[in-house]
Amino acid sequence: MTTDTSALQRAEQVMGAAGVDALLLGPGADLRYLTGYLALPLERLTLLVARADGDHHLVVPTLERPRAEAAELPDGLRLHDVGETDDPYAVVARCLDGASARLGAGDQLWSMFLLGLQRVLPDASWSRASAVMRELRMRKTPDEVDALRRAGQAIDRVHAQLPGLLKAGRTEAEVGRDIADAILAEGHSEVDFVIVGSGPNGASPHHETSDRMLAEGDAIVIDIGGTLDAYHSDCTRNYVLGDPPEGYAPAHAALEVAQDAACDAVRPGVTAASVDAAARQVLTEAGYGEFFVHRTGHGIGLDGHEEPYIVAGNELVLKPGMAFSIEPGVYVPGRYGMRIEDIVVVTEDGCERLNHGDRAMTAA
Amino acid sequence: MTTDTSALQRAEQVMGAAGVDALLLGPGADLRYLTGYLALPLERLTLLVARADGDHHLVVPTLERPRAEAAELPDGLRLHDVGETDDPYAVVARCLDGASARLGAGDQLWSMFLLGLQRVLPDASWSRASAVMRELRMRKTPDEVDALRRAGQAIDRVHAQLPGLLKAGRTEAEVGRDIADAILAEGHSEVDFVIVGSGPNGASPHHETSDRMLAEGDAIVIDIGGTLDAYHSDCTRNYVLGDPPEGYAPAHAALEVAQDAACDAVRPGVTAASVDAAARQVLTEAGYGEFFVHRTGHGIGLDGHEEPYIVAGNELVLKPGMAFSIEPGVYVPGRYGMRIEDIVVVTEDGCERLNHGDRAMTAA
Repeated sequence: MTTDTSALQRAEQVMGAAGVDALLLGPGADLRYLTGYLALPLERLTLLVARADGDHHLVVPTLERPRAEAAELPDGLRLHDVGETDDPYAVVARCLDGASARLGAGDQLWSMFLLGLQRVLPDASWSRASAVMRELRMRKTPDEVDALRRAGQAIDRVHAQLPGLLKAGRTEAEVGRDIADAILAEGHSEVDFVIVGSGPNGASPHHETSDRMLAEGDAIVIDIGGTLDAYHSDCTRNYVLGDPPEGYAPAHAALEVAQDAACDAVRPGVTAASVDAAARQVLTEAGYGEFFVHRTGHGIGLDGHEEPYIVAGNELVLKPGMAFSIEPGVYVPGRYGMRIEDIVVVTEDGCERLNHGDRAMTAA
Repeated sequence: MTTDTSALQRAEQVMGAAGVDALLLGPGADLRYLTGYLALPLERLTLLVARADGDHHLVVPTLERPRAEAAELPDGLRLHDVGETDDPYAVVARCLDGASARLGAGDQLWSMFLLGLQRVLPDASWSRASAVMRELRMRKTPDEVDALRRAGQAIDRVHAQLPGLLKAGRTEAEVGRDIADAILAEGHSEVDFVIVGSGPNGASPHHETSDRMLAEGDAIVIDIGGTLDAYHSDCTRNYVLGDPPEGYAPAHAALEVAQDAACDAVRPGVTAASVDAAARQVLTEAGYGEFFVHRTGHGIGLDGHEEPYIVAGNELVLKPGMAFSIEPGVYVPGRYGMRIEDIVVVTEDGCERLNHGDRAMTAA
């Protein structure tokens, strides 16, 4: 990942343009992006105070100070530690002195901390820090694209093993455990999620696993992802045991066309909404529109879900380096579901897919 | 875990007494405690609106509706789903109609959601929902204590394997992977954390693992925990390879006395601060006070860290059923660290320890 002083400097520029005096960021991807520090999410406050004027501070609990120092923080970032019985909000207020009018709170900062900050900074106006951070994080550097590419290759290798794992008589949970092992064995450091949606369970897009036993005639949605060198993989394919259920094959054929249409629509200058519309139009015209119950995709990087979101109404204009999923789906309640998902990166004249496994309905 | 309608009813009573009109709780332990629903932490809003007047609502993204329905929500909880392009905050505002003056925000609710709620509810006053939720969650039911007891037994079985895993020439990371496997093999569903702090790394309380190779003469802090039936384990023991470093054995002996003193101090009617003081006094009188850089403990239950916190200044009075760690430590920068940690539950006349492995410095 990219963590150098320049990330903080770029944040200063975007803050200046956006009219934000400072960002207040807790543990998570924003903090990591700007400082390289992978902070633990604790009930004790850890907070980066990134100021538009370049006077940056990191407030950590005293017992986290050794970990913060070991992270080789950017030059010029001042480290403050707060003892177990001291008031961290007073420390933050001092770090903000003279820069506390317009503040951006990290999207995932816990509310207990925001309420504490609002108490000591009663005159501040608050906005979402992502309005600034997305300008930095949405467009991936070549190193970040390479990390996403390697994560994509690793999850492709897991999908290649699926036909050997899906057998009638095995439960979703048993298959899920094998998939989790394979996600790690193929090079990820973490298993982010494992969805094995067999038969009617596939119609719940975020079903994970259950004790349902696979049976001949099942259609199975497999949506899996992990973390590799801090970046995420996320890929969905659809498998069938024996003959697919009635109506499944034509729906899957339409879904393949829809997913291709969305990928084909991706290029610099078009809106996120137009990519969603490209997939939705194909499925609607084929008669499946009511069964496509979610947006077409989400950004991916240091977070598994981040901006840009590929959704109706999002008039954000795509630019080279943006990375996101293209994952239209069809969900027929009580019967089955299906989803085809690749990660794509916007190039100068189109997009590069980072997943390459066969997208057709696959016999297991 | 305990999830029935009565949890919501008890929340109503505490809200009434505390002068809170409604709690707004996102994915996490509070939501699970009150409804049984294990919601995914997404960028889409999932929010429980628990009102003091008994009119409760759960707002979920449309694609999560099948998962929420499968959770067998308490009777009387009304479910609302919000499509991808609809405004979830408007839905919440309608759920709050007439009850939106004094609101409690879930401690871990993301700030992006709190800011969205503050925008549509500009006249509300906000407090931390934990002021209400801790009154419910701090005192564990017999079923919850049993879950914590089983988690404690499982992590004790992992510690019993440590002498066989710690060998000169192995790295912390290698040992850590074996420990993670053992945490799962002994019955946990999740590995929460694995700390292998060898030699000077032990002096950083939240050091995790590194590529440092274990060597003869190392003192090693092993602090490990997992999730078993939704409840957490958390136990620390100290191991030495060969002869301990100079000064280590007497410090460890003092630490054992301090940890016992804190456990002995636990009974209904005393304050959390007094338990912290009991451990701190022993270490201070033995000359190690400056090396005990953190509080004595944290509550444990559906969250790995929750109230009550065993820390100076916390005048909370202990009551039967409260569960927390007792984990004093000694950290000598550049040389070594040590910590002895048991989970205890307050009984009618003292406490029950939930960890039983030998607390003495153990040869590996």
